[in-house]
Amino acid sequence: MKRDILDRLNTDRESKRPVALVSDTGSGGQTLVYADAPGCGEDLPEELLSQARTALADDRSTIVEDDGKQYFIQVQSPPLRLFIVGAVHITQPLVQFAHLAGYSVTVIDPRRAFADDDRFPGVELSNEWPDDVLGRSTLDRRTAIVTLTHDPKIDDPALETVLASDVFYIGSLGSNRTHGKRLARLHENGFSEQQTGRIHGPIGLNIGAKSPAEIAISIMAEITQARRMATPHGADGTGSNGGSA
Amino acid sequence: MKRDILDRLNTDRESKRPVALVSDTGSGGQTLVYADAPGCGEDLPEELLSQARTALADDRSTIVEDDGKQYFIQVQSPPLRLFIVGAVHITQPLVQFAHLAGYSVTVIDPRRAFADDDRFPGVELSNEWPDDVLGRSTLDRRTAIVTLTHDPKIDDPALETVLASDVFYIGSLGSNRTHGKRLARLHENGFSEQQTGRIHGPIGLNIGAKSPAEIAISIMAEITQARRMATPHGADGTGSNGGSA
Repeated sequence: MKRDILDRLNTDRESKRPVALVSDTGSGGQTLVYADAPGCGEDLPEELLSQARTALADDRSTIVEDDGKQYFIQVQSPPLRLFIVGAVHITQPLVQFAHLAGYSVTVIDPRRAFADDDRFPGVELSNEWPDDVLGRSTLDRRTAIVTLTHDPKIDDPALETVLASDVFYIGSLGSNRTHGKRLARLHENGFSEQQTGRIHGPIGLNIGAKSPAEIAISIMAEITQARRMATPHGADGTGSNGGSA
Repeated sequence: MKRDILDRLNTDRESKRPVALVSDTGSGGQTLVYADAPGCGEDLPEELLSQARTALADDRSTIVEDDGKQYFIQVQSPPLRLFIVGAVHITQPLVQFAHLAGYSVTVIDPRRAFADDDRFPGVELSNEWPDDVLGRSTLDRRTAIVTLTHDPKIDDPALETVLASDVFYIGSLGSNRTHGKRLARLHENGFSEQQTGRIHGPIGLNIGAKSPAEIAISIMAEITQARRMATPHGADGTGSNGGSA
């Protein structure tokens, strides 16, 4: 690998910018492709460039053939992050599901009795107020947040902080009635309906979830849908996992 | 607890029959309520009987008040079981999600190189043929099965065995094309469209899942939906987890 490419990859990693490194496995030639830099990689064959952009969008490295040559498309993506406000019952399975799905997880709960290391072994915990933690965190398109406390004093400041950011998913636990009151408070504080429309509430896909683990599954399914599909609401629930055969 | 009630509870446990034990916390009086025995528990106040049946359906013990008295409704349910045919990439996160959601999991794969203890620590593994394992297992309304190998020699006999049973969920990995061929083979072998209509294929809720962990989430969400909701297909994807506040 040439020095300038290595330097760029390191810079991209530090600035959390997704990049695809396209390597011709025959000649060893390498090119970088970015989703947010349309001109980049234009010396590549059109079909190969398109496949590199797909790999970037899918967040998945792959080997492809083009015009008799073989290319390794290696995707380097910043980590996925999930902030969970509230160290409640649902939080315990949700942390484990999210870890398995590749998320770095931070649990924030200013109530020290809830967020302690015994209940959440090995999890990054904070007893600060969520708006303090979130205010100094990177809230980008690889970040999701859920608020689970039902307590406006804790959930609302967190929501107000993340509504100003680019996070790809915001979800809040609470019935339709609770969520309606929450929206009214946010509108009083100057947020538009377009802004608050980003909040998934009541949280989670409608799969009839009852136990904390099932609610955690419905939340992870909704986060996945928000990350992978264009429409944030309204999956039709029919199967889609075709696999390769 | 009176001897006859204890005997019944033990019999119910052995025969895997769900039962709710309703105890008057004042008088100590106890009554058993069954979902599949409409006449049972009719000496209870109507509202209390209804709450006991809801607790049974929700598989969740609870304390309720009725007419100034307090009752403990204790639900005894047989374990939830998940059989996974195929020790593939998706199987690893799926096993962990299912354990967290309270399922006993068995992974079946006659290909010994796939199903080994190193890849699945602490999981019940079988290298027998799935129809042999399933044929001698209890396949009841608390049992789900997924087939993930894409290999008709392995998946089909498993499906033929479970289609004759009461399992609450059957799902098969594979594209629409693969699934169409699978259905054609099953119909050739004498299964009706009504029978094969129970198979969720392509497997999983349509949440755009790509990685093995995401596909496992979509499968667990679909299993939860099948267990908890009347309609096996077609959740509308809107939020539902209201919580209590």
